[in-house]
Amino acid sequence: MATIFLYEIAGTAMLTLLGGGVVANVVLGKTKGNGGGWLLINFGWGLAVFAGVWTAYKTGAHLNPAVTIGLLANGGGEYADGIPVTAATTIAYFAAEMIGAFLGAVLAWMAYKTHYDQEEDAGAILGSFSTGPEIRSYGWNLVTEIIATFVLVFIIIMFGNTPHGLGPLAVALLVVSIGASLGGPTGYSINPARDLGPRIAHAVLPIPNKGGSDWAYSWVPVLGPLIGGALGGVAAMAF
Amino acid sequence: MATIFLYEIAGTAMLTLLGGGVVANVVLGKTKGNGGGWLLINFGWGLAVFAGVWTAYKTGAHLNPAVTIGLLANGGGEYADGIPVTAATTIAYFAAEMIGAFLGAVLAWMAYKTHYDQEEDAGAILGSFSTGPEIRSYGWNLVTEIIATFVLVFIIIMFGNTPHGLGPLAVALLVVSIGASLGGPTGYSINPARDLGPRIAHAVLPIPNKGGSDWAYSWVPVLGPLIGGALGGVAAMAF
Amino acid sequence: MATIFLYEIAGTAMLTLLGGGVVANVVLGKTKGNGGGWLLINFGWGLAVFAGVWTAYKTGAHLNPAVTIGLLANGGGEYADGIPVTAATTIAYFAAEMIGAFLGAVLAWMAYKTHYDQEEDAGAILGSFSTGPEIRSYGWNLVTEIIATFVLVFIIIMFGNTPHGLGPLAVALLVVSIGASLGGPTGYSINPARDLGPRIAHAVLPIPNKGGSDWAYSWVPVLGPLIGGALGGVAAMAF
Amino acid sequence: MATIFLYEIAGTAMLTLLGGGVVANVVLGKTKGNGGGWLLINFGWGLAVFAGVWTAYKTGAHLNPAVTIGLLANGGGEYADGIPVTAATTIAYFAAEMIGAFLGAVLAWMAYKTHYDQEEDAGAILGSFSTGPEIRSYGWNLVTEIIATFVLVFIIIMFGNTPHGLGPLAVALLVVSIGASLGGPTGYSINPARDLGPRIAHAVLPIPNKGGSDWAYSWVPVLGPLIGGALGGVAAMAF
Repeated sequence: MATIFLYEIAGTAMLTLLGGGVVANVVLGKTKGNGGGWLLINFGWGLAVFAGVWTAYKTGAHLNPAVTIGLLANGGGEYADGIPVTAATTIAYFAAEMIGAFLGAVLAWMAYKTHYDQEEDAGAILGSFSTGPEIRSYGWNLVTEIIATFVLVFIIIMFGNTPHGLGPLAVALLVVSIGASLGGPTGYSINPARDLGPRIAHAVLPIPNKGGSDWAYSWVPVLGPLIGGALGGVAAMAF
Repeated sequence: MATIFLYEIAGTAMLTLLGGGVVANVVLGKTKGNGGGWLLINFGWGLAVFAGVWTAYKTGAHLNPAVTIGLLANGGGEYADGIPVTAATTIAYFAAEMIGAFLGAVLAWMAYKTHYDQEEDAGAILGSFSTGPEIRSYGWNLVTEIIATFVLVFIIIMFGNTPHGLGPLAVALLVVSIGASLGGPTGYSINPARDLGPRIAHAVLPIPNKGGSDWAYSWVPVLGPLIGGALGGVAAMAF
Repeated sequence: MATIFLYEIAGTAMLTLLGGGVVANVVLGKTKGNGGGWLLINFGWGLAVFAGVWTAYKTGAHLNPAVTIGLLANGGGEYADGIPVTAATTIAYFAAEMIGAFLGAVLAWMAYKTHYDQEEDAGAILGSFSTGPEIRSYGWNLVTEIIATFVLVFIIIMFGNTPHGLGPLAVALLVVSIGASLGGPTGYSINPARDLGPRIAHAVLPIPNKGGSDWAYSWVPVLGPLIGGALGGVAAMAF
Repeated sequence: MATIFLYEIAGTAMLTLLGGGVVANVVLGKTKGNGGGWLLINFGWGLAVFAGVWTAYKTGAHLNPAVTIGLLANGGGEYADGIPVTAATTIAYFAAEMIGAFLGAVLAWMAYKTHYDQEEDAGAILGSFSTGPEIRSYGWNLVTEIIATFVLVFIIIMFGNTPHGLGPLAVALLVVSIGASLGGPTGYSINPARDLGPRIAHAVLPIPNKGGSDWAYSWVPVLGPLIGGALGGVAAMAF
């Protein structure tokens, strides 16, 4: 149990540190990467997963409640080598993912502290923590997150069927893919912890001009990934 | 036979979901990736193949009638481990690829539904489904598609000669390459199903301002890849 | 001997087809990739090498007289498994590389035929075939090509010392690297055949508005890579 | 001892040649890559590490005093196969890294000689040698460098826990990640030698319009990485 907490907290913190960092780099003022474009964000998030998976390899590197739900729905019996699927381990994964995601967001804020202090655009600040839709439509935004997370979890489970030597690069490139292809409408949460943990950090951190945390939208990037992940896990059973 | 349908439909749907998605992201209005550039599209399509190959690995992940034709022309005797080359399996691959390509395009439309509803540029809408030439010249457009698909199928068959641990990444990067290098004139169909399936989806889906489906051009991205694929398969026999 | 010709001609043609193609895509008018940027060109050329190496793996995939010279200088005794270093094999590699580079350039021209016909900028046309300096200074341009090719050949020889499963991706990424880092002043020929073969194609192909082939500069991207490759091969002997 | 010097000097020189080169390509006037963007710089630096690791694989390819410090703090007993951790080997690594970083910067300057001679922006010139903050705040700049180097060294040590065939690509992509995500405020030194060696080269090379070498800031990109590397090595002991 302590192993799950140690590895999944560290791995998910690595994820949101590097993932939040790349968005901060692109959207906050006066950074080296300001205006660097969507592909930079896609590679940044994909490689954030890369770093997170190296960190949490021992516990299967879920880093994401949607992955945990997907494996649960898939019915494989184990979350990682030697870690059985039980109510207790499921809750431990969820809790560790949320704690890690929050901590990583705090670290990203520290790395970009001076830029946050000088930023006047509340939308840019929130966007570097959590996702938001370009066209607000809760139903269709939910559909987008369900489809994108379905792809994530389904393909992750399919990795096991194909011989390759890519290790953590496979999932990193999958996340680059999902961001490039399905991130356009909502910014691809595809991970409840990745969105909610940093949103809480946004709410509590002392950032000038930060504005509200858009709680009205916050359920979409949580519920959509959970549904998509469960569907992905079920669908993979047929293959 | 059911295996071919299940895997090739799912894999080709993954391909056009993610491939159509990245173009929608770049060309439709108000998306996060709007104006993201050609390299973003190239990586998006390359990684769409990546995801499709993981999905359909068990049936050889053709995902493309030009690949099926190329393997037929190459005369290897098998389309994948345990799947012999016969008239029935050939037709099954073709049918599954077409059905999958259509379904993936519908899913991509669902993921970008609100953006399609607000888009007023008919060319952008069609461009996110199917390819079209920048300079219309059916003969030379055909030449471009033949050359590009020759490269695709020839190199895929050559993969077997070289030891490596890249798995599905090898073909993904090959598709990035073809898009970057040979996609400039026609938008690189290099796959009859990838072009025709989404074109049918474009014709039937209820999209405001969608305009015509450019059926006058539609034979080029079907015939060119079939010729190029067959030539690639034949050429590879010499190596 | 026929094996060297078959594989090295095909591989080097693949190289200049895809390498010339990406530059045509970025610099010629009305293409999908027009103005796509330096990173697109770097990935395009890197992946052109990727495709070329799969094609010519059996003969060691030199694709480049500077690599042939480097291996000669390195004194390993073999150009590839079963192909000894002799005067005859050396000349065969050189000839095949030149023929292949010329043929690939002709194919790239065919793929972009309508765009070449409409292009009015002679510099863009020549730039899609051969390299040229941004600041003309034969001595320093030569230094840049020597350094860049030294890196190419030295690292290629060092590949053998490190366990990895990257296969042809290793050299592809090395070429992305050299283009990104050392291609700024001269456009990184780093390969006499890659520059001279397409320059001859430029001279003979019927392209409106093509202007001269800049023969005054043409010796730099031939001599520089030969010197750099030989130095790289010698330096690698110490490691 | 001579082995450490040979390999680490060569590898670190490769690192700063290619790393300094990509920044020169993007920021100096009249280059092919001028204005090429942050992602180009990130890939350039990541692949500079790629080339450096192939070069110095035999000695563990530290290329960076922060990595040496991290391994020292991690307490593994060896710096590479057959190279024990001693005061003498530690000093040899440090010295070789500094010498190599200086030499690589001189080579990058030679490759871009004509562009340096014509450049009038002192900030661009210095920026192609060493890092500098966008918002000067020594304390927070130090925090950013500590966090970024922690990630580098921690994940490098974690590589050993996960089966993969990526070889030097793993660390290359990690450096792409750190640059994309955490390079925004300070330009990611994450390596005392990479920053100080080229700064000394900047101070001594005859470059018109070069301005000062910003020695006031120079301690941040040395001390931050040393602290971050040591913390990363200690943290990895828990995993």
